[in-house]
Amino acid sequence: MAEVVAMRRDEQQDGPVRAAFADGILRLTLSNPPANALSLATIAAMRSELDAAREDKAVRVVIIAAAGKVFCAGHDLKELTAHRADADRGREFYQRTMEDCAQLMQAIVRLPKPVIAEVDGTATAAGCQLVASCDLAIASDHATFATPGVNIGLFCSTPMVALSRNVSRKHAMEMLLTGETIDASSAREFGLINRVVPREYLNQVVTKYAQTIASKSPLTLKIGKEAFYEQAEMGLADAYDYAAKVMVENMLARDAEEGIGAFVEKRKPQWTGE
Amino acid sequence: MAEVVAMRRDEQQDGPVRAAFADGILRLTLSNPPANALSLATIAAMRSELDAAREDKAVRVVIIAAAGKVFCAGHDLKELTAHRADADRGREFYQRTMEDCAQLMQAIVRLPKPVIAEVDGTATAAGCQLVASCDLAIASDHATFATPGVNIGLFCSTPMVALSRNVSRKHAMEMLLTGETIDASSAREFGLINRVVPREYLNQVVTKYAQTIASKSPLTLKIGKEAFYEQAEMGLADAYDYAAKVMVENMLARDAEEGIGAFVEKRKPQWTGE
Amino acid sequence: MAEVVAMRRDEQQDGPVRAAFADGILRLTLSNPPANALSLATIAAMRSELDAAREDKAVRVVIIAAAGKVFCAGHDLKELTAHRADADRGREFYQRTMEDCAQLMQAIVRLPKPVIAEVDGTATAAGCQLVASCDLAIASDHATFATPGVNIGLFCSTPMVALSRNVSRKHAMEMLLTGETIDASSAREFGLINRVVPREYLNQVVTKYAQTIASKSPLTLKIGKEAFYEQAEMGLADAYDYAAKVMVENMLARDAEEGIGAFVEKRKPQWTGE
Repeated sequence: MAEVVAMRRDEQQDGPVRAAFADGILRLTLSNPPANALSLATIAAMRSELDAAREDKAVRVVIIAAAGKVFCAGHDLKELTAHRADADRGREFYQRTMEDCAQLMQAIVRLPKPVIAEVDGTATAAGCQLVASCDLAIASDHATFATPGVNIGLFCSTPMVALSRNVSRKHAMEMLLTGETIDASSAREFGLINRVVPREYLNQVVTKYAQTIASKSPLTLKIGKEAFYEQAEMGLADAYDYAAKVMVENMLARDAEEGIGAFVEKRKPQWTGE
Repeated sequence: MAEVVAMRRDEQQDGPVRAAFADGILRLTLSNPPANALSLATIAAMRSELDAAREDKAVRVVIIAAAGKVFCAGHDLKELTAHRADADRGREFYQRTMEDCAQLMQAIVRLPKPVIAEVDGTATAAGCQLVASCDLAIASDHATFATPGVNIGLFCSTPMVALSRNVSRKHAMEMLLTGETIDASSAREFGLINRVVPREYLNQVVTKYAQTIASKSPLTLKIGKEAFYEQAEMGLADAYDYAAKVMVENMLARDAEEGIGAFVEKRKPQWTGE
Repeated sequence: MAEVVAMRRDEQQDGPVRAAFADGILRLTLSNPPANALSLATIAAMRSELDAAREDKAVRVVIIAAAGKVFCAGHDLKELTAHRADADRGREFYQRTMEDCAQLMQAIVRLPKPVIAEVDGTATAAGCQLVASCDLAIASDHATFATPGVNIGLFCSTPMVALSRNVSRKHAMEMLLTGETIDASSAREFGLINRVVPREYLNQVVTKYAQTIASKSPLTLKIGKEAFYEQAEMGLADAYDYAAKVMVENMLARDAEEGIGAFVEKRKPQWTGE
């Protein structure tokens, strides 16, 4: 099954998002250089890949990477500008773009499998939002980050939804109000990314994270990731009521029985994903 | 227009808040040394300046600074203590003080123009809250911060509303429970301020930030700042629904059309604020 | 009174939680080595101590420490596993365990007295949650932290309620998804703990924090701690309405009158706790 999936995915090598699958890890590469802009076509391609990944039991972890020097420059300004000639001055097209993009970001958050951003270039505007929306983010020392919409009269209002849920207010506001670019080290300090590694080790480190996570029970990852974002929006008492119920169901699942048994017996667990 | 406003403001040089205006930047200086305490008169003067700044199209950015060694020591304890002799033991006066002060802090947050704190001294209690309430805060290496109300039996409960929305729980609790003073470097590490600079460069750095921000479209700043604090209180799905709508309206504004056009044509944008 | 209480507490030296009281500071030591696991008996003993501390006016501050090399390894896996043999496969027992544990964590948050974690060993899963749930946490350079449930098929869903309210999303997710252990320095950087000190000074530093806090008005601490967690769950306007009311009541209390008076008169305040 995993083999067949891998074959199918390997064929998807010519759209704006390339997909490669191996050992439980699905690697999605934005391949629309130089900007890797989130055109409607790119957004649709990415969502399609995530939808497929959701249903595909072989996929344990997703990596989002990019081809070229720019990780992702955000929306496609030429595409947006072209629609100013529409009868409604582009309103309908802008609505569709913003809604589709917001759905893509939420699809990452709602995917029952961890998503890791591998960033080796500039991530700006909705590209920075894409990094912030992933569960983990690892960058090379060449990566940079910005929410520069303010420079062109279009405040990064949707990017800041993700940004402000990752970094503190003063840091978010500095990025949003000045539009200035921060380096990977500052992004790590702010909490936007987890780690900075030398460029030549980036893929290796990200792959190691992905392998580590792919070795866990997929059911447990699904339960945990979903619960993480659910409880984050609750008050403390509700969050505990909810999380305690989640823990009980998790305890009664086959994989917890196997995992705890293996731990007590000092052997490697065999996950069934149930 | 800006010139006339500048003239009017330049006259306000003898109240508890001095105002100076130049090049789109309104500089408000707490001038009630040595403590620069937030007496009712000072709170009212500051609110009055902010109300005027809200309506004044020439004002693009506001800086809040202070005269003397103390940035702001919070409430005026002598004023508060004097009202213990009131028939109601001061209740009505305390209510008015706390409500007025809370309104001042929220007026900063709700002002549709960015506000930068320039801190070169001690910011304690409601003075620390004032720093936390600004969108950005830059301090000299002589600045210090504390929420020491616990030392005098009056917990910094209103200051912590702003503090706890800027720094993590353990850090906020350490400041609140011990009442101890932290230096500018710790404040930066905690996320309470954006930058620490040598005293001799403080004004220069703050002015540069203000100039950078003043060069953006005022409409875009207004849209973005408002959206930032609105979405911060929403769940993820609601925040995205809201922010996507904000982005569409922003795209259809004159300044976004001009800004994106200028970017594509590699020229400097001419903002109209519409 | 304090002396009598101290006597009573000194007798509790043989259960899973040892209690020692001196100078307003109640020191609770998890004493169920090697894992100091949160068995039902340990949870009950800890809750019983906290309930007593809540009512005991002599107790000003609580320290939670642990005997041995492990601070707390979380739930008692043997106890949990044994109940798989129950007719309901353990469901009822797991519900009781998760609910009791969640109540314990919330009892720390709701205790009207500050609680400091003193960590000199490994704090994992619900043990890490215990640290996160305390108001302050100070660790030795030998302390480590992890939420490794994912390794045994049981995601740390209740621990993450406390963890994610202390550290940023990317950091929390890294700990939760990889299950890997972080050192004290990283925990401090993430915001999970306040300070790291050399092992030989740990007790001394924690005691100094506790003494500092114990010297404040207990009424003021109660008002402030309660308000902190209440306002944290509100929007800004509601938080200010609430906190302003809290400040007014605090101002009218005897201890604020005494504290402010002592400050103005430059003398040491005499708290009555009223």
